[in-house]
Amino acid sequence: HKHGDKHQYSSTSLFGPALNIITEHSNTLSPIKVPVDENLIGMVLAEDVVARLPVPGYRASILDGYAVVASDGPGIYPVVGVSIANTSHLPADKLLPGQIARITTGGPVPPGATAVVMVEDTTLIRASADGLQEESVEIHVQVNDGANIREIGSDTSVGSIVARKGELLSAVGGEIGVLASVGVCVYRRPVIGVLSTGNEVIDHKNTLELKYGQIFDSNRPTLFSIAKATGFEVKDFGIVDDDPKELEKTLNTALTQVDVLVSTGGVSMGELDLFKPTLEKSLGATIHFGRVKMKPGKPTTFATLSGTSGAPEKLIFGLPGNPVSATVTFYLFVLPALRKLAGYENWNSPILPAELTDKLSLDPRPEYHRAVISFDHSKGKFMATSTGHQISSRMLSLRSCNALLKLPEKTDQCKELDKGSTVDAILIGQLS
Amino acid sequence: HKHGDKHQYSSTSLFGPALNIITEHSNTLSPIKVPVDENLIGMVLAEDVVARLPVPGYRASILDGYAVVASDGPGIYPVVGVSIANTSHLPADKLLPGQIARITTGGPVPPGATAVVMVEDTTLIRASADGLQEESVEIHVQVNDGANIREIGSDTSVGSIVARKGELLSAVGGEIGVLASVGVCVYRRPVIGVLSTGNEVIDHKNTLELKYGQIFDSNRPTLFSIAKATGFEVKDFGIVDDDPKELEKTLNTALTQVDVLVSTGGVSMGELDLFKPTLEKSLGATIHFGRVKMKPGKPTTFATLSGTSGAPEKLIFGLPGNPVSATVTFYLFVLPALRKLAGYENWNSPILPAELTDKLSLDPRPEYHRAVISFDHSKGKFMATSTGHQISSRMLSLRSCNALLKLPEKTDQCKELDKGSTVDAILIGQLS
Ligand SMILES: [Mg+2]
Ligand SMILES: [Mg+2]
Repeated sequence: HKHGDKHQYSSTSLFGPALNIITEHSNTLSPIKVPVDENLIGMVLAEDVVARLPVPGYRASILDGYAVVASDGPGIYPVVGVSIANTSHLPADKLLPGQIARITTGGPVPPGATAVVMVEDTTLIRASADGLQEESVEIHVQVNDGANIREIGSDTSVGSIVARKGELLSAVGGEIGVLASVGVCVYRRPVIGVLSTGNEVIDHKNTLELKYGQIFDSNRPTLFSIAKATGFEVKDFGIVDDDPKELEKTLNTALTQVDVLVSTGGVSMGELDLFKPTLEKSLGATIHFGRVKMKPGKPTTFATLSGTSGAPEKLIFGLPGNPVSATVTFYLFVLPALRKLAGYENWNSPILPAELTDKLSLDPRPEYHRAVISFDHSKGKFMATSTGHQISSRMLSLRSCNALLKLPEKTDQCKELDKGSTVDAILIGQLS
Repeated sequence: HKHGDKHQYSSTSLFGPALNIITEHSNTLSPIKVPVDENLIGMVLAEDVVARLPVPGYRASILDGYAVVASDGPGIYPVVGVSIANTSHLPADKLLPGQIARITTGGPVPPGATAVVMVEDTTLIRASADGLQEESVEIHVQVNDGANIREIGSDTSVGSIVARKGELLSAVGGEIGVLASVGVCVYRRPVIGVLSTGNEVIDHKNTLELKYGQIFDSNRPTLFSIAKATGFEVKDFGIVDDDPKELEKTLNTALTQVDVLVSTGGVSMGELDLFKPTLEKSLGATIHFGRVKMKPGKPTTFATLSGTSGAPEKLIFGLPGNPVSATVTFYLFVLPALRKLAGYENWNSPILPAELTDKLSLDPRPEYHRAVISFDHSKGKFMATSTGHQISSRMLSLRSCNALLKLPEKTDQCKELDKGSTVDAILIGQLS
């Protein structure tokens, strides 16, 4: 422990520049060809997708009614056929002027027909003796040519672009359905590794009791869950003791298997905080910053390791061991990097203005303060309520948090924000 | 085809009453005990979770510095020990007045110490000849008893409630970490089945080409993806031909395996629309409504089937075969039911006011109009842009849609909404 060399492996950064360094090193991964299924959700298209077939593929009725020759106009007509959205009932014969054919929604419009009249604008005049066949129907309205018909390719013509390079494929969008018949080219999603460090850190799967000085590892399961929930593949590299050789070995192994490695703990200034020296001296990684002026998250460390033989650079995050700090810095630093690697055009989380429901004391460091925001319809704005104690070791305050409030650093002029102040809220969870 | 009996199996409902019928039949499923891992995300606690161990489990330092006897005050003191957040360096001896011990963040505070002074408020006075041991250090400040110490159980005392019944477990909240050492009791998540109907409907996995009158099945992959992305387990029951026996058999099989069955197609008024008669006559299900006054989604059908021997009632949704209609009605009707079954207290999607960037024509039916909403920081409000053609067969208009705008039905007084009008937007996707 050298009392004076606390910055041996680290330069201190402000939050904005720190995030810029990370995103500058987060280069979109290579495109890959994948089948179209639910795994596409959250992936970004690496090339335009062009329609191979027209939609619809045949002239289709928009509604239930009668295919007609529009110029015939209102009157009583014989029903000469049926066209149902079903390949067992396809219209075979050409419809002649003076004839009509029953048709259901999505059914192929018979050749010769020029429009469809909705059933509500008709009256059944005569049916067969058994009541099963319509023989003649009165058409009450005059329709225009093309009425209620979707022409071939009118939704999507062959060769038209149905989805664009850079588009994020979401569950909402129905892209899965649109793209269903063609494999698509998307950017590869990064693979993430998580590990915890410290021989005081115990996996809850191994024991229910703690000895004096031990703590349960909540970071690994939490970060694993966040990465999964945000759509990325995660590998678990366990807990590493405070041993330089073991740490080096685990880091080396992990870095051959992942694009992004996220470690927690080992980044403070104690002599057993081996993460930075091991990265730099043993692995030859470049440490870009080792401290950030922020609360929580001060010891956040970011490093990169060059890829071998043209492989992309590996990103390495050393997050604080404190559970709340680890979670907050994952959302603020790691998630934007993962999204940018995956090809997202908007890699940052959305920011919404929110009004404080209570006063908040400021910290000497800029703070990312956990809160619940929800829209107040009577006030017409988002309201932000702190999720409790902000002592950074108190995990429970993260409960039902969905936002991080950006609070400025304390100054002589401003030591707290009043109730009713408006602040920027970074949305990291769901609105409800 | 009976021209006059279009409502044989269906009563028409307004949207609000229809949704109420559904949620009244969506009873929270039984609690189950599960291990704590990433699969917990999106589940709701079925009982309070009580702390089994205190957090912290020992008196821990909040920062790097020196453990002191606070009443000693400023001065130069001998360094008699080291306490690191690491089980290999535990403080053994009691700290006496006039002594100090080096301590790192998270390290156990030695017995006898009453406070921690941060390293920045100290100066190293003398080190050992090899420079590795601190021998004496000057303390510059007076601290209070308890300063910078987390007492045992101060975050969480044994027996205190760490998470409450009814709480939704999210990735954001860190609950996974908090709960890590105890199995928890959550409500079982519903299992969903999806199927498509119609012998004109072709699985894209089976062919790349379509014959006259055929269409690709985009609904099943889309709904499968949405259900997955929203965190539910889905089973795929394929495409069922328009054959009463086959439909009955598939419905019977599916309903033994799922809590909620979602079918698309077969709910219009044509004679091959077998869904409603099969449900009612062959399966003995109760059809609650078969039409809803809304656009899109008019033929949406909702039925229930009593469970056998105390099993919960099965919910059955017959959604329109049109891809956009199927997607929109899934979000509006099925998703709230799934959330309520899973124990969510807020089962509806959030609603936000949004200003139209363009005028919108109104429909005779209340409309759920697909749009992209995003927050405009200069205007201080959400802006809503239609995602294009609203002809309900045009799937592409769903692209990058994240909201459904609730538009009122057209009246003689109001045929369109002007640009700048504010409407309610149901948020169904991510803000960006
Ligand atoms: Mg450590
Ligand atoms: Mg059909």
